[in-house]
Amino acid sequence: MSFPKYVKIREVGPREGMQIEETHVATENKIRIIDLLSECNIPIIEVTSFVSPKWVPKMADAEQVAAGFKKFPNIKYECLYLNAKGIERAQATGKFDLDGVLSITASETFSKKNTNLSIEETFNEMEKRIQTLNDYNVPITTLAVMTAFGCTYEGDKNPKQVVNLISRSFEKTNEFGIQPSNILLGDTVGWANPVTTEKLVALLQDKWPDKNIVMHLHDTRGMGIANAYVALKMGITQFDSSVGGLGGCPFSGAKGAAGNIATEDLVHMCHELGISTGIDLDKLIDVTREIEHILGRDLSSKVAKGGTLDSYRQRATS
Amino acid sequence: MSFPKYVKIREVGPREGMQIEETHVATENKIRIIDLLSECNIPIIEVTSFVSPKWVPKMADAEQVAAGFKKFPNIKYECLYLNAKGIERAQATGKFDLDGVLSITASETFSKKNTNLSIEETFNEMEKRIQTLNDYNVPITTLAVMTAFGCTYEGDKNPKQVVNLISRSFEKTNEFGIQPSNILLGDTVGWANPVTTEKLVALLQDKWPDKNIVMHLHDTRGMGIANAYVALKMGITQFDSSVGGLGGCPFSGAKGAAGNIATEDLVHMCHELGISTGIDLDKLIDVTREIEHILGRDLSSKVAKGGTLDSYRQRATS
Repeated sequence: MSFPKYVKIREVGPREGMQIEETHVATENKIRIIDLLSECNIPIIEVTSFVSPKWVPKMADAEQVAAGFKKFPNIKYECLYLNAKGIERAQATGKFDLDGVLSITASETFSKKNTNLSIEETFNEMEKRIQTLNDYNVPITTLAVMTAFGCTYEGDKNPKQVVNLISRSFEKTNEFGIQPSNILLGDTVGWANPVTTEKLVALLQDKWPDKNIVMHLHDTRGMGIANAYVALKMGITQFDSSVGGLGGCPFSGAKGAAGNIATEDLVHMCHELGISTGIDLDKLIDVTREIEHILGRDLSSKVAKGGTLDSYRQRATS
Repeated sequence: MSFPKYVKIREVGPREGMQIEETHVATENKIRIIDLLSECNIPIIEVTSFVSPKWVPKMADAEQVAAGFKKFPNIKYECLYLNAKGIERAQATGKFDLDGVLSITASETFSKKNTNLSIEETFNEMEKRIQTLNDYNVPITTLAVMTAFGCTYEGDKNPKQVVNLISRSFEKTNEFGIQPSNILLGDTVGWANPVTTEKLVALLQDKWPDKNIVMHLHDTRGMGIANAYVALKMGITQFDSSVGGLGGCPFSGAKGAAGNIATEDLVHMCHELGISTGIDLDKLIDVTREIEHILGRDLSSKVAKGGTLDSYRQRATS
């Protein structure tokens, strides 16, 4: 396959990054980060989580963050929620057009640790979840598979098992006459390599040629951008990433491990490969510096320090 | 093409890393780092530079470093030198079996800044260089092309120009009845992407199918490991890299930019892809931590923080 002409990037730093960040980030700084990211014209920004402050205290200011950020007309703002309460809180802010996501986890142990449900229990709960989303008129757009490539508790995942879980999920949604258009593959703790990425994506493209595959890659072991390259080569047009490589997973097994693939490194590679993203990369690099200042630490992305090749090309030819 | 079964890695951290490192590294610590790297069984280690201490003061202790490190039987120890004086100094230590490298630079401006010679002057000097290497019985094994993909001063390099420079170099060596077996492609300031890597490597493989191509990749803009993946897929069996991603180039244009691709991240990817390296990765990760301690700063490699997948597999299945 050949590269797509355009890739849609969802920035998950304000949600996934802020959730795991050790530094306390003041609400006004969270809002400032979101507004700065909007100025870079990132097409989708995941803003916050409407979850219990008892479990995720860092997201206790979700309402204030939602009230504070400025909506830009061409940007879609998303948020995470786990139940009816979360939907109500998110809808009450009036800031989000909610998308419905059905999540399953390929690893039994990870599923229990992260969601308190086994895989079978997740399937049992799925009907209730669909019902709740229907009750609140939230369109079910996405089936998300977490730890799709493997996890620290159970090791490698057989891609056929993942295909099987996705099939079962679609059978459930079909019972409700619902066909989510997106399959999100989450490499939640950085288990994928370029070959396993190619294998799983090929299986999915073969079985569900009409579905849109979204890659949620982590750079835990330094292969994130290589995996993204392979996915791009297979025609994947949607990616999650985080500014500066913020984020990570509390169940990755290693404190201080790298988080999501960095938005600016992904955008830079896309632009170098002739794939447009609509994102203002120079501005995004400035935003990375600003976030480093806010967090008081260096971020792990590369292009923010090395500079874009385009900036050197302009100087070279002028 | 398919992956090679074995990849030979040359560790350049003690030379390229120590040369650019801002922290003062005591001679005894340089020696300690080399010995620790030897314990990891890295097949080739570039130890130091025998160059003028006036130009590279950080390498003024080259003799002491050479005298201090312990030679392991199955490891090849290399060093950098630029002229007869350097060869004499290196040979006097009795620690090295010198390899002869002929270097050319694809960018005229970079060539002048880095070597004080234009490209034409480099060709003119090449005969003298070959003569000197012959005089000291140093076998000429490698033709190295610096800034093979582009540079911050002149932008992108046309791969056909690079092929042309290599052809001219081989014409020169042929006059002396010498056929260097290696072509080293240096992405000196991080200009390559996976597509340009594939293009240039394919051109070289097509024109010189009997030559061994060595990749010297930098991760300046986060694509280093993706470029290495593409090279592996094309059957490349030799790579330069540096522990912890040490290194960089003073002419990269950006202070603080990432250096060479990190040895541990490259080794980890190779092992995940079923390619052996002979390197003890767990030990190498310990060494990265030790070097972080010596330098008093975090290094940018990922797997040293995230842990190897094999370590999790062992825990998962036990």
